[in-house]
Amino acid sequence: MAIADSAETATRWASSRAIDLWVCFGATFPLQQARDEGAIVVYYEGEPASAFRVFEQMRLASVADVRRVGVIGTTSEQLAAGRCAGVAAVVGIADDDALRAELLAAEPDAIVGSGQLERFESDRYGRGRLLRESVLLNPGPALTTDGVKRAAAGVDLCHREPEFIVLENRIRMRLRQVAEIGDEWHVALISGSGTAADELALAASVRPGRKLLLLENGVYGQRLEQMAARRGIPTEVVRAVWTEPVDVDDVEHALRAEPLIDAIALVHHETTSGLLNPLDRIAALARDVDVRLMVDAVSSFGAEKIELADSGIDFLACSSNKCLHGLPGAAFVLVSPEGAARAAEVPPSSVYLDLPAYIRSAEVGSVPFTPAIPALAALDAALAELIVEGGIAARRESYAARCAVLDAAFERLGLEQLIRPEDRSLCVRSVRLPAGISFERLHDRLKQDGYVIYAGQGPLAREIFRVCSLGALQPAALEGFADRLELALVADPAAA
Amino acid sequence: MAIADSAETATRWASSRAIDLWVCFGATFPLQQARDEGAIVVYYEGEPASAFRVFEQMRLASVADVRRVGVIGTTSEQLAAGRCAGVAAVVGIADDDALRAELLAAEPDAIVGSGQLERFESDRYGRGRLLRESVLLNPGPALTTDGVKRAAAGVDLCHREPEFIVLENRIRMRLRQVAEIGDEWHVALISGSGTAADELALAASVRPGRKLLLLENGVYGQRLEQMAARRGIPTEVVRAVWTEPVDVDDVEHALRAEPLIDAIALVHHETTSGLLNPLDRIAALARDVDVRLMVDAVSSFGAEKIELADSGIDFLACSSNKCLHGLPGAAFVLVSPEGAARAAEVPPSSVYLDLPAYIRSAEVGSVPFTPAIPALAALDAALAELIVEGGIAARRESYAARCAVLDAAFERLGLEQLIRPEDRSLCVRSVRLPAGISFERLHDRLKQDGYVIYAGQGPLAREIFRVCSLGALQPAALEGFADRLELALVADPAAA
Repeated sequence: MAIADSAETATRWASSRAIDLWVCFGATFPLQQARDEGAIVVYYEGEPASAFRVFEQMRLASVADVRRVGVIGTTSEQLAAGRCAGVAAVVGIADDDALRAELLAAEPDAIVGSGQLERFESDRYGRGRLLRESVLLNPGPALTTDGVKRAAAGVDLCHREPEFIVLENRIRMRLRQVAEIGDEWHVALISGSGTAADELALAASVRPGRKLLLLENGVYGQRLEQMAARRGIPTEVVRAVWTEPVDVDDVEHALRAEPLIDAIALVHHETTSGLLNPLDRIAALARDVDVRLMVDAVSSFGAEKIELADSGIDFLACSSNKCLHGLPGAAFVLVSPEGAARAAEVPPSSVYLDLPAYIRSAEVGSVPFTPAIPALAALDAALAELIVEGGIAARRESYAARCAVLDAAFERLGLEQLIRPEDRSLCVRSVRLPAGISFERLHDRLKQDGYVIYAGQGPLAREIFRVCSLGALQPAALEGFADRLELALVADPAAA
Repeated sequence: MAIADSAETATRWASSRAIDLWVCFGATFPLQQARDEGAIVVYYEGEPASAFRVFEQMRLASVADVRRVGVIGTTSEQLAAGRCAGVAAVVGIADDDALRAELLAAEPDAIVGSGQLERFESDRYGRGRLLRESVLLNPGPALTTDGVKRAAAGVDLCHREPEFIVLENRIRMRLRQVAEIGDEWHVALISGSGTAADELALAASVRPGRKLLLLENGVYGQRLEQMAARRGIPTEVVRAVWTEPVDVDDVEHALRAEPLIDAIALVHHETTSGLLNPLDRIAALARDVDVRLMVDAVSSFGAEKIELADSGIDFLACSSNKCLHGLPGAAFVLVSPEGAARAAEVPPSSVYLDLPAYIRSAEVGSVPFTPAIPALAALDAALAELIVEGGIAARRESYAARCAVLDAAFERLGLEQLIRPEDRSLCVRSVRLPAGISFERLHDRLKQDGYVIYAGQGPLAREIFRVCSLGALQPAALEGFADRLELALVADPAAA
């Protein structure tokens, strides 16, 4: 349900109800608005509630997908029947506290009073509901498959049990496979966002009395700079304008000029703009002069080509919810042997953000803190899908096809992109807002059509909008987006 | 499925397969081990695959719960039929890369080669599978309801969209409701573990040039001490032996003796031992002398009585996956107005762990970093369930009933508890290991019966085991546990 495979899917997401058939056990509720919106509401009386009763009603109503069906009931047995039928929504009706508490045993999605049902149904499942699928064209969290979501909703585990360690180790194995690195690389898994992984890595990269060389050409470079400043790490900064890659000669010059530099930090893909920095050349430099290299690859790993083994990269920070198509909540740092040696020489300035603690725990089959188990299970499933898909090479190809659709559309519509073609990433496009078009109106109009675009950040907030190609989506959905964008900008610019 | 409601449920979880009926579309696979374990395997030929074909087979096989049914298929259509039927397992079979990649579009749970199916089926769904439900008696992550898990597997959202902010604000509203505090309290939601929330709060509690008064009588108190040390916060420590609450007179004395003390930090419930510290009296002291109070309530909030409004507590750190029965990955700090004022005076030493950044973002309807959306959606659902259940008072009552079962069992079996009855929490019991009984063997034996107990930590690792009462479970499941424990220790001690 969550793959944006076509323009029709986007339209359906934008306009349809969540539930087409309500099977009400035990009582009659009008659900007038649901009916007005085309839903079928049936009241089942007769034999006791069971999954088979639900299936019969599906057949009668010609609804062939339980993910479009809901069950409403007033007893635990009725709600349990809904759960046994696997329907998308199980709603308990109770007007007193005792019954309400009793219905919890059947694990419904919600329990509401009979007087609130109409409103609740409309707010949560109706055509105008707020929480609904959209074609997410923001730079993550991205659309994920049902397989990934189902993995997150798997069995509850204790993180001190071997089955959890098996899960973590399989994630490590899959990450190494995807990254084409050997077992000598460490994989630190942290519960948190990409920023948590960045700070975990950055904080471990520079020894006391030494300096960081920081490359900055966007919001995320600024964020790394702020991390260094707050930790009191002396920092030299090489800046570039936000629309240009960092100049490798500038980096080399800064490196040669300051022998105290212990590590370089940079953002591989500046999500701010969609710009790629020349990671391979900077890695080669770092290797040549034997300083450690920390890379924020939060929005590039999984989609861009990154040579890791013996490249000069020592810390690669990434999150699960961008190009890897996992859910937000888990992030990681890939650490080279040299990176691990460095981290061991840096006194930790935090308990939670202490990279060696994660590395040491992994070595003894443990975890330092309670991990985000559902997000990890989702990451594991997402990595399995990535591998089946053909690994990073295949994903790169599919992102390239998506970007080709977007680039062609922007050109056709005369929209100017912020970044030169040769510097663009495979997952973010920054497009200048045409004169007289406000981001908010354009965003709201496209969202009505089922597409979520993203604002610019910092000084770019009023200048650009961003359209991203990551997640479980297909070029056909982007073709639909291009049509809607054209409609908004060319056919009916006043509305955008 | 995930509420441990009885001893029978525990036994079923420990011994049964995950899938009772496999519906195979398009090809025949022997699945001999599944059959040997009692599963029914049917091959559907004839009309095209659809959910109704699955339902027919369920009727023929008398399997009335799709959560016990799996579908195996070799085409996208067949797998899609499984998804439309809402079955628990959808497995694609493909022997070449192109087909494998094609089947991804149907969002199966896994894709395997035909030669791997037998082994895969047994490893993932068979009687001896590693990943399975157990009655979790560890101190979180706890058992959660299907309603909570389904919330986590909801629609993909962009965190910059209003629907996400609605979700966050509803969580804040529900947390304030449960905590009985007003809108003047801030709720900082962070992606991470309880330790992340602790460090977020602790780092913001002491101004430069001032001191922390830290109360320590367990592993988590030590962890707070380590956080302060790594951040260079000068700290006075009041210690107690790990089996005794912190002495309030000692705290008062330390407070009076050192005028530079700016904040007190303590662990309300030491999960290490199951000991409660006298939070209310320490809060009153802190209020009297006007120092800020930071509380680790990670394993107490939601179950123990905590007076917050005007109590003297300024920072209360907690995670979603203990007494609140949410999933791991989200945590939070409740911050009093005085706490927020204090945090604003402390220069941040981290970007990710910067409490004022979370408070400021919430005020403008934003988030500083990509949030753990699925864990937050799960927390929202868990809070809704807590409120329906009757709030903290009802949960306290239900935990008390659970502990009564445990305490009676330990007494009957002559097992000595580490903590005096009047100092025990409502969710953790620390029990001395009888002479000659190793934790590992006792653990493994009970796990075979469906129950997961927890080891001691630090110096207690070889002395005690822990049994916890939190999560979606009922006293009847604990009665089953007591029987199994008796069997292990009394009837057959050599095996334990």
